[in-house]
Amino acid sequence: MTPFKLTEEFVEEIEQLIEQNNDAELNSMLDAVHYADVAEIINELDETKATYLIKLLGSDKTSDVLTELDEDIREAILGNLSSQEIASELDELDTDDAADIIGELPKEQIQDVISKIEDREHAKDIVDLLRYAEDSAGGLMAKELVKVNENWNVLTCVKEMRAQAENVTRVHSIYVVDDEDKLKGRLSLKDLLTTSTKTHIKDVFIKNVDSVNVNEDPEEVARIMTKYDLEAIPVVDEIGRLVGRITIDDIVDVIKEEAERDYQMAAGISRGVEADDSIWELTKARLPWLIIGMFGGIGAASIISSFQEVMNTFPILLIFVPLIQATAGNVGVQSSAIMVQGLANNTVKGEILNRLLKEFTLALINGIAIAAIVLVISHFFFRTSYLISLTLCVALISVIIIAALIGTFIPVFLDKRGVDPAVATGPFITTGNDIFGILIYFSIAKMILGI
Amino acid sequence: MTPFKLTEEFVEEIEQLIEQNNDAELNSMLDAVHYADVAEIINELDETKATYLIKLLGSDKTSDVLTELDEDIREAILGNLSSQEIASELDELDTDDAADIIGELPKEQIQDVISKIEDREHAKDIVDLLRYAEDSAGGLMAKELVKVNENWNVLTCVKEMRAQAENVTRVHSIYVVDDEDKLKGRLSLKDLLTTSTKTHIKDVFIKNVDSVNVNEDPEEVARIMTKYDLEAIPVVDEIGRLVGRITIDDIVDVIKEEAERDYQMAAGISRGVEADDSIWELTKARLPWLIIGMFGGIGAASIISSFQEVMNTFPILLIFVPLIQATAGNVGVQSSAIMVQGLANNTVKGEILNRLLKEFTLALINGIAIAAIVLVISHFFFRTSYLISLTLCVALISVIIIAALIGTFIPVFLDKRGVDPAVATGPFITTGNDIFGILIYFSIAKMILGI
Repeated sequence: MTPFKLTEEFVEEIEQLIEQNNDAELNSMLDAVHYADVAEIINELDETKATYLIKLLGSDKTSDVLTELDEDIREAILGNLSSQEIASELDELDTDDAADIIGELPKEQIQDVISKIEDREHAKDIVDLLRYAEDSAGGLMAKELVKVNENWNVLTCVKEMRAQAENVTRVHSIYVVDDEDKLKGRLSLKDLLTTSTKTHIKDVFIKNVDSVNVNEDPEEVARIMTKYDLEAIPVVDEIGRLVGRITIDDIVDVIKEEAERDYQMAAGISRGVEADDSIWELTKARLPWLIIGMFGGIGAASIISSFQEVMNTFPILLIFVPLIQATAGNVGVQSSAIMVQGLANNTVKGEILNRLLKEFTLALINGIAIAAIVLVISHFFFRTSYLISLTLCVALISVIIIAALIGTFIPVFLDKRGVDPAVATGPFITTGNDIFGILIYFSIAKMILGI
Repeated sequence: MTPFKLTEEFVEEIEQLIEQNNDAELNSMLDAVHYADVAEIINELDETKATYLIKLLGSDKTSDVLTELDEDIREAILGNLSSQEIASELDELDTDDAADIIGELPKEQIQDVISKIEDREHAKDIVDLLRYAEDSAGGLMAKELVKVNENWNVLTCVKEMRAQAENVTRVHSIYVVDDEDKLKGRLSLKDLLTTSTKTHIKDVFIKNVDSVNVNEDPEEVARIMTKYDLEAIPVVDEIGRLVGRITIDDIVDVIKEEAERDYQMAAGISRGVEADDSIWELTKARLPWLIIGMFGGIGAASIISSFQEVMNTFPILLIFVPLIQATAGNVGVQSSAIMVQGLANNTVKGEILNRLLKEFTLALINGIAIAAIVLVISHFFFRTSYLISLTLCVALISVIIIAALIGTFIPVFLDKRGVDPAVATGPFITTGNDIFGILIYFSIAKMILGI
């Protein structure tokens, strides 16, 4: 199957068919299209047309489509569906996806929708999931899993498993529990394929099984699952009872969201916004960081004006302020980004002192290289005097070294204090280094030029 | 099982035991430790001790350890092993991991190592994999998979599968091929658990199966697998023959590496370096971007000196240069980061004109907010005259709008030209906006102050 490519023509055709109420043609066109692709199409439609399509297609497909839609479009569509219609969509979904959708409904509607879910076991599982915080292992897990009792024999086990597997989209592992539902170990699918059916569970199951607590941080779950290459991990409650499982596809989403948040933080954007969010949302995410940067600029202005005599005597120094500032900012961002990633990947080893020493050497090399180029340019192009050129070079080298050390130290410091070091990159480091850079520049000028 | 926590004490104990040649104690200590954790321990040791440990532990464990090690440490250890020893490690590994390790060996050693691999089928598969480029689906895939012929009946099929499954760590899907080895579809594991053993393969297999071409870009494979929530995808050659499969754990690595590369690009670091790389590697990754930033600073210096009369008449304007520059840089990075992510996630919809209009409105709001704060501060704190304050405010609003539009436009432009828009954030945007910002600032000053 070649992958589906969403084209404008295709969307226009769908829109026309909806306007013509040509249900037969719509059904036949979308029949072979994967639900993730149908969701992409619906994301492009207006609310009325989107709702029309959701109501038209069978709920075995639309339930999956709903989980893939953009949040704002899903919210709009759900607002146009009755509680009965929503409940029948949820009946088709895995418990984790169903719980996520219920969590987006208006509070007063939730109970009504749950009461209309046909499969009462399913409804109970969904309600169980609702009590976990969104950013915990419990908030990520699904109740669907295959588990067998350690006291069964393989014959009972296979029979029970076949029944359970009917409700589970993908069977990853067969978990083994005791009579109190406490997780004891697992049976691998491979064992299932290669072991004789006469064996006892107690004698064949693997006792070593990784699990996470319901309250675990999703990013820690992601770290464990990727480190140990797990495709599913069982979730246990405070006393070790098996309550759910997390699969790798949910973890892929966690990893992507984490990466996006770090990227945005480095760019001075908070709150996890997207390009298509409202102007108000985008302003709330962006303005605070601009204000931080603004205060950095104001700070730099006060520093410059406090060096009034330098300004008056050697005004040419002022034209190089942007150079100093840009260099300090770039070096700081580089150093902090490397540390933030190193800390996240656990590749930062050894003493902080060695780390700073390495960064110092690196900065010295970069500083000398940059200063050498600037020396030539300032001499031939700006015709600066010997002392001004010296000031510029010494200042550049010093600024690069200090910015590198600050950029290296701050993330380590934050990490040790339990703060996410990712906040250190971007505007904070840039702003701090702007101020330090200019202070260093004018102080060195004062010393060298003897003002 | 509670997750393993690597402590300094534990590493020190291991080091002491190695010095004492206390093999029995070492073996018993590390026996229950997961190979990923053993790799973390070895990453902390020096080359001699690391090699000692690899030689001590059984190759069923150390082969997996080798795949998890940091590249430089693995290279050092492999250099201390004979071709025979390396070959016996490779014998234990999946073909994709084995091929990756062989790819790191010195060219003259490769043939020798391959000739010493005991399992000749395995060696053949590894050699097959070596011919694919590292950044292609072929370079990611493994040869281990379970496949059945559409012409078999289920009885033959199950027997064959049991044999094949012995060589496959995890069975994800059972692929169905025709007599020419062309991929026809798949059997799900669930079907296997719930279908009677008397059925014919031809009648039960699912004909719809996603697959990727051996030459596909890994990032595109990642996009397809995450979009369709696949845990494994079969890889076919140019004429549709099944040649391998890619599993989600490899894709998780692709996603992480992509995110890290984008993050580094935004921070002005190229070449995918890590905190622990050599100073020379780090300099090569960082200096070029600093030089770009430096030329931005030099450009800004020439612009300022070209406004000599403004400088002479109103020197106070110069103290606000860092403010203008910081604001332009921050806005540009924010706008471009949102566009880069939007383009990567396909959430940027509609016309570029609407997008620019939205960014314009957003920038206007932010600009007015920042200008209002600066107006108050400059008036009361710096006691600037009415005209200077006006200059500052108009310049800030203009700079914020222009920086936002540039930050939005450039990624879209690059994307349309087929260039990765991620290169647009970071130093390029900052440098460009530095220059534009200062040009706008002095031009507006010239107009308003009538110099």
